Amino acid sequence: MTLAEKIISKNVGKNVYAKDSVEISVDIAMTHDGTTPLTVKAFEQISDKVWDNEKIVIIFDHNIPANTSKAANMQVITREFIKKQGIKNYYLDGEGICHQVLPEKGHVKPNMIIAGADSHTCTHGAFGAFATGFGATDMGYVYATGKTWLRVPETIRVNVTGENENISGKDIILKTCKEVGRRGATYMSLEYGGNAVHNLSMDERMVLSNMAIEMGGKAGIIEADDTTYRYLENAGVSREEILELKKNKITVDESEEDYYKTIEFDITGMEEQVACPHHPDNVKGVSEVEGTELNQVFIGSCTNGRLNDLRIAAKYLKGKKVNENTRLIVIPASKSIFKEALNEGLIDIFVDSGALICTPGCGPCLGAHQGVLGDGEVCLATTNRNFKGRMGNTNAQVYLSSPKIAAKSAVKGYITNE
Amino acid sequence: MTLAEKIISKNVGKNVYAKDSVEISVDIAMTHDGTTPLTVKAFEQISDKVWDNEKIVIIFDHNIPANTSKAANMQVITREFIKKQGIKNYYLDGEGICHQVLPEKGHVKPNMIIAGADSHTCTHGAFGAFATGFGATDMGYVYATGKTWLRVPETIRVNVTGENENISGKDIILKTCKEVGRRGATYMSLEYGGNAVHNLSMDERMVLSNMAIEMGGKAGIIEADDTTYRYLENAGVSREEILELKKNKITVDESEEDYYKTIEFDITGMEEQVACPHHPDNVKGVSEVEGTELNQVFIGSCTNGRLNDLRIAAKYLKGKKVNENTRLIVIPASKSIFKEALNEGLIDIFVDSGALICTPGCGPCLGAHQGVLGDGEVCLATTNRNFKGRMGNTNAQVYLSSPKIAAKSAVKGYITNE
Repeated sequence: MTLAEKIISKNVGKNVYAKDSVEISVDIAMTHDGTTPLTVKAFEQISDKVWDNEKIVIIFDHNIPANTSKAANMQVITREFIKKQGIKNYYLDGEGICHQVLPEKGHVKPNMIIAGADSHTCTHGAFGAFATGFGATDMGYVYATGKTWLRVPETIRVNVTGENENISGKDIILKTCKEVGRRGATYMSLEYGGNAVHNLSMDERMVLSNMAIEMGGKAGIIEADDTTYRYLENAGVSREEILELKKNKITVDESEEDYYKTIEFDITGMEEQVACPHHPDNVKGVSEVEGTELNQVFIGSCTNGRLNDLRIAAKYLKGKKVNENTRLIVIPASKSIFKEALNEGLIDIFVDSGALICTPGCGPCLGAHQGVLGDGEVCLATTNRNFKGRMGNTNAQVYLSSPKIAAKSAVKGYITNE
Repeated sequence: MTLAEKIISKNVGKNVYAKDSVEISVDIAMTHDGTTPLTVKAFEQISDKVWDNEKIVIIFDHNIPANTSKAANMQVITREFIKKQGIKNYYLDGEGICHQVLPEKGHVKPNMIIAGADSHTCTHGAFGAFATGFGATDMGYVYATGKTWLRVPETIRVNVTGENENISGKDIILKTCKEVGRRGATYMSLEYGGNAVHNLSMDERMVLSNMAIEMGGKAGIIEADDTTYRYLENAGVSREEILELKKNKITVDESEEDYYKTIEFDITGMEEQVACPHHPDNVKGVSEVEGTELNQVFIGSCTNGRLNDLRIAAKYLKGKKVNENTRLIVIPASKSIFKEALNEGLIDIFVDSGALICTPGCGPCLGAHQGVLGDGEVCLATTNRNFKGRMGNTNAQVYLSSPKIAAKSAVKGYITNE
């Protein structure tokens, strides 16, 4: 059985397999400022009381602080819903991006089923959970009943081996996107493994799971291990609960016949990767796009705005200035990360380099209210999507890379690994 | 003669008096991201070369980073203009609010005539300059010729006396707004003096000059003194130039007959002031509005986002949490201030209190892209304008106060001096 089959089987109390349709019990349901009002509207048509006020988590991150009165009014609706329903877990005032705050505050645990009204909910698969995005109408039903249904997905196994200190999680997932293709994993679970994956920190593993959706994936799962449990401990999960989780650990079988297919590659000697306009699977080695002039560089997002990312960016920006023709925007993925970056002197380094620091949140990634590009402008971003118009302008171009390549390129003013 | 008459007379090379119409030579011309493209459009109809590429200063502050492709395209036009014209002084990547960056970088000096395409250009009167706002068409002519015309304004003298450590520049100017009224100084120069004014730091004096426009004022001028010269030295103005400025110092006569009228008040025993919706002259003592519940508090803007303001706010926020029902947005007025606030640990204090920190710029003040209010919401801001809809929602209410009252109120969740 695959990790997806095992987690879902555990949830439904019997063995289920790919293509089975099942009703599942949601462990954590998450909505944000963009999706809560629609969820509430759907919810209120079928119920007046949420199924469990401790299992719902609401986070403001898309338009924070509110950029329009419409966005502000959506936040008013959500605040009222939280009060009325006595929701226990909410992070509304710039606490950070939902896909960072959820694990950081200890809400995400292995074996869970996590439903989120955001396409990048698959991020939490990095913890050995089955996490996936739902539309707001489906989430309304979850808020009312704690249940939803899904077709158990087939699984593509991605085995990544070898060692290469130049290669980050972002390079691995861009390479995977190239191999699998933008529609290659539609409604499938991606199961990442191999020594190169288990050598990664949780910050880096979340990058892999985060971008499963860019191949059409329903989920992106990594088996829990000691790195996972250490993260949980730091996030405030009790030792007793961690012991229990270890006891109930769901492990990989890796029997070929369970998988739709298996993809393998070795990172030894691999070059850093860059996704070119206008799709995350349009991936080239950085040397192939060396010299592409940049108007803007963005380091942040639910993909690469974590502490490890900021440390790497700071390493390459320390004592240097962002190029005269380029602007650099740095946004820590959460307030906790911002605070740690403050304490470590990273924010100082960014400010000295000439970067703009914005309040934790999704920022320029979705093109809603910050760092929108002008016509003909080119951006290199550490985000997950470079679709035409994604960052707010259909006449602009977006490349994707790791924070290392982004920081180096911001200094030079063009894409480079120098 | 009044300060305005003396400065303008010096500029035109002969004595001129209130109501005279004169052509003046502009010493510094400033436009921002919102007004440069219109200025460029007007300029290009009459010239292809700016009159002096060292006397023009361009600063991005209104929509930074760009919130829409329209805003981004306006920035593209401006960047191209800067390159084409070889403009020497520009601050484009989150350097801060024009009315802070201009003095901070040493562009503002006593006796100057400063023309800015922003209504709060009067801020620079705090340095003994005649500084006033122009429309973009007029600025196009200035960019082409270095000249413009004005009618020498009549002057209202504002004498503020007494001592009171509880009273800030903001309290003094709100009290002045109340006394003069929203149209009481239309097309006039306000000339601030008295021991209570000269006891203020430059940060606090700029608050007085900044809000001259809220009474309809053309300018808000304070005689230069040693506090002014010390600021210039810190801003990098050479000692030789400062000596020359001291030699050519323009001093107040204070002969009653030169003024349209004189207003006097004593701050001894005065209460802290709050402007109520929907106008800056609708001013009450803080005790009269005590208990007004707040959804949002904003500390920042060209009025009160300076280092001194952040120090005061931090003093009242240290070790405390922003009220559960209130969100606090703090935006340093410039990157330099952000950096000093970082070094002094103020940013830590704000983050720990639960505040959102945004990138230096105008922020929520103009309701364009950050911190917009929802219907029925109430905000207390350290800004200069609380017009209906100013912060982006005509169904919201905005109060204005000093950073001290704002910080105390953020902790309590309602307007208070406790």
